[in-house]
Amino acid sequence: MYREQIKILDCTIRDGGLINNHDFDHRFVRAVYKALSAANVDYMEIGYKNSRRLFSPKDYGIWKFCDDEDIKKVIDGIESKTKISVMVDVDRVDVDDVKPRKESVVDMIRVACYVKDVDKAIRLVNHFADKGYETTVNLMAISRILETELNECFHQLAEECKANVIYVVDSNGALYQETTEYLIKKAKSICKGKEIGIHAHNNQQLAFSNTIEAIIHNANYLDGTVFGMGRAAGNCPLELLFGFLKNPKFDIRPILDLISTEFIPLREKIEWGYIIPYAITGMLDEHPRAAMALRDSDKKENYREFYESLIGSDEVE
Amino acid sequence: MYREQIKILDCTIRDGGLINNHDFDHRFVRAVYKALSAANVDYMEIGYKNSRRLFSPKDYGIWKFCDDEDIKKVIDGIESKTKISVMVDVDRVDVDDVKPRKESVVDMIRVACYVKDVDKAIRLVNHFADKGYETTVNLMAISRILETELNECFHQLAEECKANVIYVVDSNGALYQETTEYLIKKAKSICKGKEIGIHAHNNQQLAFSNTIEAIIHNANYLDGTVFGMGRAAGNCPLELLFGFLKNPKFDIRPILDLISTEFIPLREKIEWGYIIPYAITGMLDEHPRAAMALRDSDKKENYREFYESLIGSDEVE
Repeated sequence: MYREQIKILDCTIRDGGLINNHDFDHRFVRAVYKALSAANVDYMEIGYKNSRRLFSPKDYGIWKFCDDEDIKKVIDGIESKTKISVMVDVDRVDVDDVKPRKESVVDMIRVACYVKDVDKAIRLVNHFADKGYETTVNLMAISRILETELNECFHQLAEECKANVIYVVDSNGALYQETTEYLIKKAKSICKGKEIGIHAHNNQQLAFSNTIEAIIHNANYLDGTVFGMGRAAGNCPLELLFGFLKNPKFDIRPILDLISTEFIPLREKIEWGYIIPYAITGMLDEHPRAAMALRDSDKKENYREFYESLIGSDEVE
Repeated sequence: MYREQIKILDCTIRDGGLINNHDFDHRFVRAVYKALSAANVDYMEIGYKNSRRLFSPKDYGIWKFCDDEDIKKVIDGIESKTKISVMVDVDRVDVDDVKPRKESVVDMIRVACYVKDVDKAIRLVNHFADKGYETTVNLMAISRILETELNECFHQLAEECKANVIYVVDSNGALYQETTEYLIKKAKSICKGKEIGIHAHNNQQLAFSNTIEAIIHNANYLDGTVFGMGRAAGNCPLELLFGFLKNPKFDIRPILDLISTEFIPLREKIEWGYIIPYAITGMLDEHPRAAMALRDSDKKENYREFYESLIGSDEVE
């Protein structure tokens, strides 16, 4: 009953790193890698490959840079078929920092971009593909793109880009199942021969159902995170995906242990999940940054005032 | 763009009462009624109408019995178009406790039953309908019913029952959008002329998306609860429904205030929401009672052991 082509990519450390400036210690990341390996998750995304010229290591944890030496400390000695992925943002990476794949412990590089930056993304992806990596393009904030621009973007990716996978990324957590269906079908119909992926945010408690919707319409690359950890409301919970997918290779039990021992205590220290200001930005299709600022302030539970500040009182025309 | 026939029923106090033995004080319930009225929610379900011969008032709060005098203390003096609903379980109600509608403050009586008890439910519903009430039948645990029994049940309801609305109730939080679509379409096609409703539980973070799925397939009666409060994982969050529905009569702001002032403090005292043992019973399509017992024990975070206890180690044939 299961679809063998489906791959799960866990981006707990990468997306979760957006909560704590990528400052997880080696022990914690190793525990995650060990559990994902035992659970047979296909990929683990461990962080960003950012330029040290643009971001100071004094201000960020090591997973903002993902040096091979740090990755080795996490994976060495653990039996695993789980591949390692890192993410890059356009304009934030030094391509010379990226060694050829055969000299690296990284298997996949995912390039995140807004639709307007797709030309930059294609250039990066093709560079990394030529260095031997599996590659993806992750189209962010896809809920707010004009039809004509989105069509052109997908056509460019189909014709000019070496990426194996094109991801629909619901950065705002604003998609519903009908809009997810629409976007996945469009990507699939234009980007023939490529795999389609889904990265959902959970502002409206729809990350899991939108991922299911994408599966129904033949997306095969699915992002999840342990206990849904990720920026703001977080992502599609990996453990729920396991419950839905029928592939006997996946084992939920190491993930259950990991949540008990590591993520329940972590949730006491850093915040993600169903939190009303994130639900509000999701339903208004806004980036969560205003809600994140609210949660850092002494007005964190002033939901009505926050809602009214977003819908505005000024004439806008 | 909105469908005028859609009605929202808030069952915060009724389903939330399953967490605390229906022991909310008048002040709290009045605050909920006031906010629901200001938000223009169509119905508020305030509790159960249970027999005092079967349940002692010493063991339960007042919303296990829903005397008119208690309801009046909550609603008197508040301007409102929100109708009042109470729920009854088959075999747990004294029909003589229920006055004719014109002598009561209650507008709607919902009869909850398992499919096997549909004959009892029909008898009760027809009795209450004859007393002048709006009525519904709420078919519990509908994820675990054989096709042939479900067909017979829907045909009986279509032909013998005076209920205005037939509810699909996902007691276990086990439905996905495809199974929701299947059940709603079946109910709609057999119970012609009746409205179909959905009551979803949120074990797998699918209560909201399953409610949307039911809307897509023409269910018009939607259950929600404030901040998703309800037994175990809780229900479809009312505030998210507001974000999805386009009907301009609904106002989310009183609900946001209510969550800020009442439900954030309450959540510190009683537990509901996305909690792994409830997710596990949802994905295994089991009643949450074993998970509720676990959460009351000193093994509340032992997820793996709990999972293994449910999938079992014995031969079952």
